[in-house]
Amino acid sequence: MTRILAGRRPVLEALRADTRIRHIYIEPQRVDPAIREAAEAQGLSVAHRDRAELDRLSEGVRHQGVVALADDYPFCEVDDLLARADTPAVIVALDQVTDPQNLGAIIRSAVTLGVDGLIIQKHRAAGITPSVVRASAGATEHASIARVTNLQKTLQSLSKAGLEVIGLDAGGEMDVRELQPSSNGRVLVVGSEGKGLRRMVRERCDIIVQIPQEGPMDSLNASVAAAIAMYEMTGKRVSHDR
Amino acid sequence: MTRILAGRRPVLEALRADTRIRHIYIEPQRVDPAIREAAEAQGLSVAHRDRAELDRLSEGVRHQGVVALADDYPFCEVDDLLARADTPAVIVALDQVTDPQNLGAIIRSAVTLGVDGLIIQKHRAAGITPSVVRASAGATEHASIARVTNLQKTLQSLSKAGLEVIGLDAGGEMDVRELQPSSNGRVLVVGSEGKGLRRMVRERCDIIVQIPQEGPMDSLNASVAAAIAMYEMTGKRVSHDR
Repeated sequence: MTRILAGRRPVLEALRADTRIRHIYIEPQRVDPAIREAAEAQGLSVAHRDRAELDRLSEGVRHQGVVALADDYPFCEVDDLLARADTPAVIVALDQVTDPQNLGAIIRSAVTLGVDGLIIQKHRAAGITPSVVRASAGATEHASIARVTNLQKTLQSLSKAGLEVIGLDAGGEMDVRELQPSSNGRVLVVGSEGKGLRRMVRERCDIIVQIPQEGPMDSLNASVAAAIAMYEMTGKRVSHDR
Repeated sequence: MTRILAGRRPVLEALRADTRIRHIYIEPQRVDPAIREAAEAQGLSVAHRDRAELDRLSEGVRHQGVVALADDYPFCEVDDLLARADTPAVIVALDQVTDPQNLGAIIRSAVTLGVDGLIIQKHRAAGITPSVVRASAGATEHASIARVTNLQKTLQSLSKAGLEVIGLDAGGEMDVRELQPSSNGRVLVVGSEGKGLRRMVRERCDIIVQIPQEGPMDSLNASVAAAIAMYEMTGKRVSHDR
Protein backbone atom coordinates (compact mmCIF):
# COMPACT_ATOMS: atom_id res chain seq x y z
CA MET A 1 0.00 0.00 0.00
CA THR A 2 1.02 3.57 -0.58
CA ARG A 3 -0.07 6.80 0.98
CA ILE A 4 -0.39 10.28 -0.44
CA LEU A 5 1.47 13.37 0.72
CA ALA A 6 -0.18 16.49 -0.66
CA GLY A 7 1.25 19.98 -0.50
CA ARG A 8 4.65 21.59 -0.70
CA ARG A 9 5.57 21.64 2.98
CA PRO A 10 4.51 18.03 3.67
CA VAL A 11 6.57 16.77 0.70
CA LEU A 12 9.59 18.88 1.70
CA GLU A 13 9.47 17.65 5.30
CA ALA A 14 9.10 14.06 4.06
CA LEU A 15 12.24 14.55 1.95
CA ARG A 16 14.09 15.93 4.98
CA ALA A 17 12.90 13.06 7.22
CA ASP A 18 13.23 9.31 6.72
CA THR A 19 9.97 8.94 4.81
CA ARG A 20 10.27 6.33 2.06
CA ILE A 21 9.02 8.22 -0.95
CA ARG A 22 8.27 6.33 -4.17
CA HIS A 23 7.21 9.09 -6.55
CA ILE A 24 7.07 12.85 -6.59
CA TYR A 25 4.71 14.61 -8.97
CA ILE A 26 4.56 18.31 -9.67
CA GLU A 27 2.57 20.41 -12.09
CA PRO A 28 4.46 20.94 -15.40
CA GLN A 29 4.53 24.75 -15.10
CA ARG A 30 5.68 24.68 -11.49
CA VAL A 31 9.26 25.75 -10.80
CA ASP A 32 10.25 24.50 -7.39
CA PRO A 33 14.01 24.30 -6.90
CA ALA A 34 13.71 23.42 -3.19
CA ILE A 35 11.64 20.31 -3.93
CA ARG A 36 13.85 19.41 -6.89
CA GLU A 37 17.09 19.74 -4.91
CA ALA A 38 15.77 17.84 -1.91
CA ALA A 39 14.53 15.09 -4.22
CA GLU A 40 17.88 14.85 -6.04
CA ALA A 41 19.70 14.61 -2.71
CA GLN A 42 17.59 11.50 -2.06
CA GLY A 43 18.20 10.09 -5.54
CA LEU A 44 14.57 10.67 -6.50
CA SER A 45 13.32 12.14 -9.73
CA VAL A 46 10.40 14.49 -10.05
CA ALA A 47 7.74 13.68 -12.65
CA HIS A 48 5.16 15.99 -14.18
CA ARG A 49 1.44 15.46 -13.76
CA ASP A 50 -1.29 17.89 -14.73
CA ARG A 51 -3.55 19.56 -12.18
CA ALA A 52 -6.50 17.22 -12.82
CA GLU A 53 -4.33 14.19 -12.09
CA LEU A 54 -2.90 15.78 -8.91
CA ASP A 55 -6.45 16.67 -7.80
CA ARG A 56 -7.45 13.05 -8.31
CA LEU A 57 -4.42 11.72 -6.41
CA SER A 58 -4.77 14.07 -3.47
CA GLU A 59 -8.44 13.30 -2.87
CA GLY A 60 -9.53 16.82 -2.06
CA VAL A 61 -6.56 17.86 0.08
CA ARG A 62 -4.97 21.13 -1.11
CA HIS A 63 -1.80 20.10 -2.91
CA GLN A 64 -0.34 23.36 -4.33
CA GLY A 65 0.84 21.45 -7.36
CA VAL A 66 3.00 19.02 -5.37
CA VAL A 67 2.08 15.42 -4.50
CA ALA A 68 4.19 12.46 -3.39
CA LEU A 69 3.46 8.75 -3.05
CA ALA A 70 5.15 7.13 -0.08
CA ASP A 71 5.20 3.89 1.85
CA ASP A 72 2.55 3.38 4.50
CA TYR A 73 3.01 5.41 7.63
CA PRO A 74 5.74 3.75 9.74
CA PHE A 75 3.94 3.44 13.05
CA CYS A 76 6.09 2.20 15.88
CA GLU A 77 5.40 0.25 19.06
CA VAL A 78 4.95 1.97 22.42
CA ASP A 79 8.15 0.26 23.62
CA ASP A 80 10.07 1.79 20.70
CA LEU A 81 8.76 5.24 21.64
CA LEU A 82 10.15 4.82 25.14
CA ALA A 83 13.43 3.36 23.93
CA ARG A 84 14.02 6.28 21.55
CA ALA A 85 12.85 8.95 24.00
CA ASP A 86 14.95 11.47 25.85
CA THR A 87 15.39 10.86 29.56
CA PRO A 88 13.00 11.59 31.09
CA ALA A 89 10.47 10.88 28.34
CA VAL A 90 7.57 13.16 27.53
CA ILE A 91 4.89 11.33 25.53
CA VAL A 92 1.45 12.52 24.39
CA ALA A 93 -1.50 10.12 24.20
CA LEU A 94 -4.69 11.10 22.38
CA ASP A 95 -8.08 9.86 23.50
CA GLN A 96 -10.48 9.81 20.54
CA VAL A 97 -9.23 12.90 18.78
CA THR A 98 -11.24 12.67 15.56
CA ASP A 99 -10.72 16.06 13.94
CA PRO A 100 -7.86 15.94 11.37
CA GLN A 101 -7.07 19.64 11.85
CA ASN A 102 -6.68 19.22 15.60
CA LEU A 103 -4.70 16.00 15.25
CA GLY A 104 -2.36 17.60 12.70
CA ALA A 105 -1.92 20.72 14.83
CA ILE A 106 -1.14 18.65 17.94
CA ILE A 107 1.47 16.60 16.07
CA ARG A 108 3.09 19.79 14.73
CA SER A 109 3.31 21.33 18.22
CA ALA A 110 4.56 18.05 19.72
CA VAL A 111 7.39 17.74 17.19
CA THR A 112 8.34 21.41 17.47
CA LEU A 113 8.28 21.53 21.27
CA GLY A 114 10.44 18.43 21.66
CA VAL A 115 7.85 15.83 22.74
CA ASP A 116 9.32 12.35 22.23
CA GLY A 117 6.33 10.65 20.66
CA LEU A 118 2.60 10.25 20.37
CA ILE A 119 0.18 7.44 21.05
CA ILE A 120 -3.05 7.38 19.06
CA GLN A 121 -5.91 4.92 18.90
CA LYS A 122 -6.49 2.46 16.07
CA HIS A 123 -10.25 2.90 16.23
CA ARG A 124 -12.60 5.82 16.73
CA ALA A 125 -9.85 8.33 16.02
CA ALA A 126 -8.36 10.09 13.01
CA GLY A 127 -5.50 8.21 11.33
CA ILE A 128 -2.43 9.77 9.69
CA THR A 129 -4.41 10.78 6.57
CA PRO A 130 -3.26 13.25 3.90
CA SER A 131 -5.32 15.97 5.66
CA VAL A 132 -3.57 15.26 8.95
CA VAL A 133 -0.13 15.34 7.30
CA ARG A 134 -1.02 18.65 5.71
CA ALA A 135 -2.50 20.13 8.92
CA SER A 136 0.73 19.14 10.68
CA ALA A 137 2.83 21.02 8.05
CA GLY A 138 4.61 17.70 7.47
CA ALA A 139 5.53 17.21 11.14
CA THR A 140 4.05 13.69 10.92
CA GLU A 141 7.14 12.74 8.91
CA HIS A 142 9.43 13.60 11.83
CA ALA A 143 7.16 12.24 14.57
CA SER A 144 7.27 8.87 16.32
CA ILE A 145 3.70 7.64 16.53
CA ALA A 146 2.40 4.40 18.04
CA ARG A 147 -1.11 3.10 17.51
CA VAL A 148 -2.89 1.08 20.18
CA THR A 149 -6.22 -0.69 20.40
CA ASN A 150 -6.82 -0.16 24.10
CA LEU A 151 -5.63 3.16 25.46
CA GLN A 152 -6.55 2.38 29.07
CA LYS A 153 -4.36 -0.72 29.04
CA THR A 154 -1.49 1.19 27.47
CA LEU A 155 -1.72 3.91 30.11
CA GLN A 156 -1.78 1.25 32.81
CA SER A 157 1.37 -0.37 31.54
CA LEU A 158 3.12 2.99 31.14
CA SER A 159 2.15 3.71 34.73
CA LYS A 160 3.67 0.39 35.80
CA ALA A 161 6.82 1.29 33.87
CA GLY A 162 7.15 4.33 36.15
CA LEU A 163 5.71 7.10 33.99
CA GLU A 164 3.44 9.70 35.52
CA VAL A 165 0.11 9.82 33.66
CA ILE A 166 -1.24 13.37 33.45
CA GLY A 167 -4.70 14.05 31.99
CA LEU A 168 -5.62 17.39 30.45
CA ASP A 169 -9.21 18.43 31.02
CA ALA A 170 -11.08 21.70 31.47
CA GLY A 171 -12.40 20.44 34.83
CA GLY A 172 -8.95 19.36 36.08
CA GLU A 173 -8.10 19.57 39.76
CA MET A 174 -4.77 21.30 39.29
CA ASP A 175 -3.53 24.29 37.35
CA VAL A 176 -0.97 23.04 34.79
CA ARG A 177 1.38 25.82 35.95
CA GLU A 178 1.67 24.03 39.30
CA LEU A 179 3.22 20.91 37.75
CA GLN A 180 6.56 20.47 39.45
CA PRO A 181 9.76 19.89 37.50
CA SER A 182 10.39 16.17 37.48
CA SER A 183 12.94 13.60 36.41
CA ASN A 184 10.15 11.06 35.91
CA GLY A 185 8.87 10.19 32.48
CA ARG A 186 5.46 11.68 31.82
CA VAL A 187 2.51 10.97 29.54
CA LEU A 188 0.09 13.78 28.76
CA VAL A 189 -3.37 12.47 27.89
CA VAL A 190 -5.45 14.77 25.69
CA GLY A 191 -9.14 14.21 24.98
CA SER A 192 -11.34 14.96 22.03
CA GLU A 193 -12.66 18.40 21.12
CA GLY A 194 -15.71 19.23 23.20
CA LYS A 195 -15.97 15.91 24.99
CA GLY A 196 -12.69 15.77 26.89
CA LEU A 197 -11.39 12.53 28.39
CA ARG A 198 -13.53 9.43 28.73
CA ARG A 199 -14.21 8.32 32.30
CA MET A 200 -12.22 5.08 31.92
CA VAL A 201 -9.24 7.05 30.66
CA ARG A 202 -9.51 9.69 33.40
CA GLU A 203 -9.36 6.90 35.95
CA ARG A 204 -6.00 5.82 34.59
CA CYS A 205 -4.52 9.29 35.18
CA ASP A 206 -2.46 10.08 38.27
CA ILE A 207 -3.60 13.66 38.10
CA ILE A 208 -5.81 15.85 35.91
CA VAL A 209 -4.48 19.28 35.05
CA GLN A 210 -6.25 22.22 33.43
CA ILE A 211 -5.15 25.36 31.64
CA PRO A 212 -6.28 28.37 33.70
CA GLN A 213 -8.98 30.23 31.75
CA GLU A 214 -9.93 33.62 33.09
CA GLY A 215 -12.08 35.26 30.49
CA PRO A 216 -15.78 35.33 29.57
CA MET A 217 -15.29 32.23 27.40
CA ASP A 218 -13.89 28.99 28.74
CA SER A 219 -12.97 27.32 25.53
CA LEU A 220 -9.43 27.27 24.32
CA ASN A 221 -9.09 25.51 21.01
CA ALA A 222 -8.26 21.85 21.78
CA SER A 223 -4.92 21.96 19.98
CA VAL A 224 -3.91 25.22 21.67
CA ALA A 225 -4.69 23.77 25.10
CA ALA A 226 -2.64 20.68 24.20
CA ALA A 227 0.28 22.86 23.03
CA ILE A 228 0.34 24.81 26.30
CA ALA A 229 0.33 21.59 28.34
CA MET A 230 3.11 20.09 26.18
CA TYR A 231 5.12 23.30 26.58
CA GLU A 232 4.80 23.03 30.38
CA MET A 233 5.79 19.38 30.38
CA THR A 234 8.85 19.66 28.15
CA GLY A 235 9.88 22.75 30.14
CA LYS A 236 9.68 20.83 33.41
CA ARG A 237 11.72 17.87 32.24
CA VAL A 238 14.66 17.49 34.64
CA SER A 239 17.48 15.45 33.18
CA HIS A 240 18.85 12.66 35.37
CA ASP A 241 22.38 13.85 34.66
CA ARG A 242 22.04 17.06 36.61
CA MET B 1 -23.26 49.92 8.11
CA THR B 2 -23.92 46.44 9.35
CA ARG B 3 -21.71 43.43 9.65
CA ILE B 4 -22.43 39.77 9.31
CA LEU B 5 -22.00 37.13 11.99
CA ALA B 6 -22.08 33.66 10.44
CA GLY B 7 -22.28 30.41 12.36
CA ARG B 8 -23.90 29.15 15.51
CA ARG B 9 -21.11 29.82 18.01
CA PRO B 10 -20.40 33.38 16.78
CA VAL B 11 -24.10 34.29 16.99
CA LEU B 12 -24.44 32.71 20.45
CA GLU B 13 -21.38 34.51 21.78
CA ALA B 14 -22.66 37.78 20.29
CA LEU B 15 -25.95 37.26 22.13
CA ARG B 16 -24.05 36.64 25.38
CA ALA B 17 -21.83 39.68 24.87
CA ASP B 18 -22.80 43.31 24.31
CA THR B 19 -22.95 43.03 20.52
CA ARG B 20 -25.75 45.14 19.08
CA ILE B 21 -27.58 42.64 16.93
CA ARG B 22 -30.23 43.86 14.49
CA HIS B 23 -31.52 40.66 12.95
CA ILE B 24 -31.09 36.95 13.43
CA TYR B 25 -31.87 34.58 10.58
CA ILE B 26 -32.03 30.82 10.74
CA GLU B 27 -32.93 28.15 8.23
CA PRO B 28 -36.66 27.25 8.46
CA GLN B 29 -36.02 23.57 9.28
CA ARG B 30 -33.46 24.37 11.96
CA VAL B 31 -34.47 23.77 15.57
CA ASP B 32 -32.10 25.68 17.80
CA PRO B 33 -33.51 26.34 21.28
CA ALA B 34 -30.21 27.82 22.57
CA ILE B 35 -30.19 30.53 19.89
CA ARG B 36 -33.92 31.11 20.30
CA GLU B 37 -33.72 31.47 24.11
CA ALA B 38 -30.65 33.70 24.01
CA ALA B 39 -32.38 35.88 21.39
CA GLU B 40 -35.57 36.14 23.44
CA ALA B 41 -33.57 37.11 26.52
CA GLN B 42 -32.32 40.06 24.45
CA GLY B 43 -35.77 40.93 23.15
CA LEU B 44 -34.81 39.83 19.63
CA SER B 45 -36.89 37.72 17.32
CA VAL B 46 -35.53 35.07 15.01
CA ALA B 47 -36.62 35.17 11.37
CA HIS B 48 -36.46 32.37 8.81
CA ARG B 49 -34.39 32.58 5.66
CA ASP B 50 -33.68 29.77 3.23
CA ARG B 51 -30.20 28.36 2.71
CA ALA B 52 -29.60 30.25 -0.54
CA GLU B 53 -30.31 33.56 1.18
CA LEU B 54 -28.06 32.68 4.14
CA ASP B 55 -25.30 31.65 1.71
CA ARG B 56 -25.65 35.02 -0.01
CA LEU B 57 -25.57 36.95 3.29
CA SER B 58 -22.61 35.09 4.74
CA GLU B 59 -20.42 35.58 1.67
CA GLY B 60 -18.80 32.16 1.69
CA VAL B 61 -18.26 31.82 5.44
CA ARG B 62 -19.70 28.57 6.82
CA HIS B 63 -22.90 29.59 8.60
CA GLN B 64 -24.48 26.30 9.79
CA GLY B 65 -27.91 27.77 9.09
CA VAL B 66 -27.48 30.70 11.49
CA VAL B 67 -26.63 34.29 10.46
CA ALA B 68 -27.00 37.60 12.31
CA LEU B 69 -26.70 41.21 11.21
CA ALA B 70 -25.09 43.47 13.79
CA ASP B 71 -23.77 46.99 14.16
CA ASP B 72 -20.24 47.68 12.98
CA TYR B 73 -17.52 46.25 15.17
CA PRO B 74 -17.13 48.51 18.22
CA PHE B 75 -13.41 49.19 18.12
CA CYS B 76 -12.11 51.11 21.09
CA GLU B 77 -9.21 53.49 21.59
CA VAL B 78 -5.89 52.34 23.03
CA ASP B 79 -6.56 54.55 26.08
CA ASP B 80 -9.86 52.71 26.68
CA LEU B 81 -8.04 49.38 26.54
CA LEU B 82 -5.71 50.53 29.28
CA ALA B 83 -8.48 52.09 31.36
CA ARG B 84 -10.53 48.88 31.29
CA ALA B 85 -7.54 46.57 31.83
CA ASP B 86 -6.65 44.62 34.93
CA THR B 87 -3.69 45.91 36.92
CA PRO B 88 -1.15 45.20 35.65
CA ALA B 89 -2.41 45.17 32.07
CA VAL B 90 -1.51 42.50 29.53
CA ILE B 91 -2.16 43.69 25.97
CA VAL B 92 -1.39 41.98 22.66
CA ALA B 93 -0.40 44.00 19.58
CA LEU B 94 -0.37 42.42 16.15
CA ASP B 95 2.10 43.47 13.48
CA GLN B 96 0.65 42.79 10.02
CA VAL B 97 -1.17 39.58 10.84
CA THR B 98 -3.03 39.06 7.57
CA ASP B 99 -4.35 35.51 7.86
CA PRO B 100 -7.97 35.49 9.14
CA GLN B 101 -7.55 32.01 10.68
CA ASN B 102 -4.52 33.11 12.67
CA LEU B 103 -6.09 36.41 13.70
CA GLY B 104 -9.27 34.64 14.85
CA ALA B 105 -7.30 31.98 16.73
CA ILE B 106 -5.16 34.61 18.48
CA ILE B 107 -8.26 36.57 19.56
CA ARG B 108 -9.86 33.38 20.90
CA SER B 109 -6.78 32.50 22.95
CA ALA B 110 -6.40 36.09 24.18
CA VAL B 111 -9.99 36.25 25.45
CA THR B 112 -9.82 32.80 27.02
CA LEU B 113 -6.46 33.31 28.71
CA GLY B 114 -7.47 36.65 30.26
CA VAL B 115 -5.55 39.09 28.05
CA ASP B 116 -7.05 42.58 28.51
CA GLY B 117 -7.19 43.68 24.91
CA LEU B 118 -5.69 43.64 21.45
CA ILE B 119 -4.23 46.26 19.15
CA ILE B 120 -4.44 45.66 15.42
CA GLN B 121 -3.47 47.75 12.43
CA LYS B 122 -5.91 49.64 10.22
CA HIS B 123 -3.94 48.85 7.09
CA ARG B 124 -2.08 45.83 5.74
CA ALA B 125 -3.75 43.53 8.26
CA ALA B 126 -6.92 41.45 8.49
CA GLY B 127 -9.93 43.29 9.90
CA ILE B 128 -12.67 41.78 12.06
CA THR B 129 -14.34 40.08 9.10
CA PRO B 130 -16.97 37.30 9.29
CA SER B 131 -14.17 34.73 8.76
CA VAL B 132 -12.21 36.16 11.66
CA VAL B 133 -15.29 36.15 13.93
CA ARG B 134 -15.90 32.55 12.98
CA ALA B 135 -12.25 31.49 13.43
CA SER B 136 -12.36 33.09 16.88
CA ALA B 137 -15.46 31.00 17.82
CA GLY B 138 -17.16 34.34 18.56
CA ALA B 139 -14.44 35.54 20.96
CA THR B 140 -14.28 38.80 18.96
CA GLU B 141 -17.61 39.72 20.58
CA HIS B 142 -16.07 39.60 24.07
CA ALA B 143 -12.74 41.15 23.11
CA SER B 144 -11.59 44.76 23.44
CA ILE B 145 -9.83 45.65 20.20
CA ALA B 146 -8.23 48.95 19.22
CA ARG B 147 -7.15 49.80 15.68
CA VAL B 148 -4.19 52.04 15.01
CA THR B 149 -2.60 53.49 11.89
CA ASN B 150 0.97 53.54 13.17
CA LEU B 151 1.94 50.64 15.39
CA GLN B 152 5.46 51.92 16.10
CA LYS B 153 4.05 55.18 17.47
CA THR B 154 1.51 53.32 19.59
CA LEU B 155 4.21 51.09 21.05
CA GLN B 156 6.33 54.15 21.77
CA SER B 157 3.52 55.84 23.69
CA LEU B 158 2.71 52.64 25.60
CA SER B 159 6.38 52.47 26.51
CA LYS B 160 6.24 56.06 27.77
CA ALA B 161 3.14 55.15 29.78
CA GLY B 162 5.30 52.61 31.62
CA LEU B 163 4.40 49.37 29.84
CA GLU B 164 7.08 46.85 29.01
CA VAL B 165 7.06 46.07 25.26
CA ILE B 166 7.87 42.42 24.58
CA GLY B 167 8.31 41.16 21.03
CA LEU B 168 7.76 37.52 20.07
CA ASP B 169 10.07 36.24 17.37
CA ALA B 170 11.70 32.92 16.49
CA GLY B 171 15.12 34.58 16.69
CA GLY B 172 14.44 36.20 20.08
CA GLU B 173 17.29 36.73 22.53
CA MET B 174 15.46 35.31 25.54
CA ASP B 175 13.47 32.15 26.24
CA VAL B 176 9.90 33.20 27.08
CA ARG B 177 10.09 30.93 30.15
CA GLU B 178 12.68 33.27 31.62
CA LEU B 179 10.30 36.23 31.73
CA GLN B 180 10.12 37.29 35.34
CA PRO B 181 6.84 37.84 37.16
CA SER B 182 6.13 41.56 37.06
CA SER B 183 3.73 44.14 38.36
CA ASN B 184 4.36 46.27 35.26
CA GLY B 185 1.89 46.40 32.44
CA ARG B 186 3.09 44.48 29.41
CA VAL B 187 2.44 44.49 25.67
CA LEU B 188 3.19 41.36 23.67
CA VAL B 189 3.95 42.15 20.03
CA VAL B 190 3.25 39.30 17.60
CA GLY B 191 4.33 39.36 13.97
CA SER B 192 2.88 37.91 10.81
CA GLU B 193 3.06 34.26 9.83
CA GLY B 194 6.41 33.49 8.27
CA LYS B 195 7.76 37.02 8.28
CA GLY B 196 7.85 37.81 11.99
CA LEU B 197 8.21 41.36 13.28
CA ARG B 198 9.20 44.25 11.04
CA ARG B 199 12.52 45.88 11.90
CA MET B 200 10.92 49.18 12.90
CA VAL B 201 8.61 47.33 15.26
CA ARG B 202 11.40 45.20 16.72
CA GLU B 203 13.27 48.37 17.55
CA ARG B 204 10.37 49.54 19.68
CA CYS B 205 10.54 46.38 21.82
CA ASP B 206 12.34 46.35 25.19
CA ILE B 207 13.09 42.68 24.69
CA ILE B 208 12.46 39.94 22.13
CA VAL B 209 11.42 36.56 23.49
CA GLN B 210 11.15 33.23 21.71
CA ILE B 211 9.39 29.96 22.38
CA PRO B 212 12.03 27.25 22.85
CA GLN B 213 11.81 24.81 19.94
CA GLU B 214 13.75 21.62 20.30
CA GLY B 215 12.68 19.35 17.52
CA PRO B 216 13.66 18.76 13.88
CA MET B 217 11.21 21.49 12.77
CA ASP B 218 11.39 25.02 14.06
CA SER B 219 7.99 26.22 13.11
CA LEU B 220 5.25 26.41 15.64
CA ASN B 221 2.01 27.61 14.13
CA ALA B 222 1.91 31.41 14.59
CA SER B 223 -1.24 31.34 16.68
CA VAL B 224 0.08 28.53 18.89
CA ALA B 225 3.31 30.46 19.54
CA ALA B 226 1.23 33.55 20.38
CA ALA B 227 -0.97 31.51 22.77
CA ILE B 228 2.05 30.15 24.65
CA ALA B 229 3.51 33.66 25.02
CA MET B 230 0.14 35.04 26.22
CA TYR B 231 -0.12 32.17 28.70
CA GLU B 232 3.31 33.04 30.10
CA MET B 233 2.47 36.72 30.35
CA THR B 234 -0.91 36.40 32.06
CA GLY B 235 0.63 33.82 34.40
CA LYS B 236 3.40 36.23 35.36
CA ARG B 237 1.13 39.15 36.11
CA VAL B 238 1.77 40.21 39.71
CA SER B 239 -1.07 42.22 41.16
CA HIS B 240 -0.11 45.49 42.90
CA ASP B 241 -2.32 44.54 45.85
CA ARG B 242 -0.07 41.74 47.01
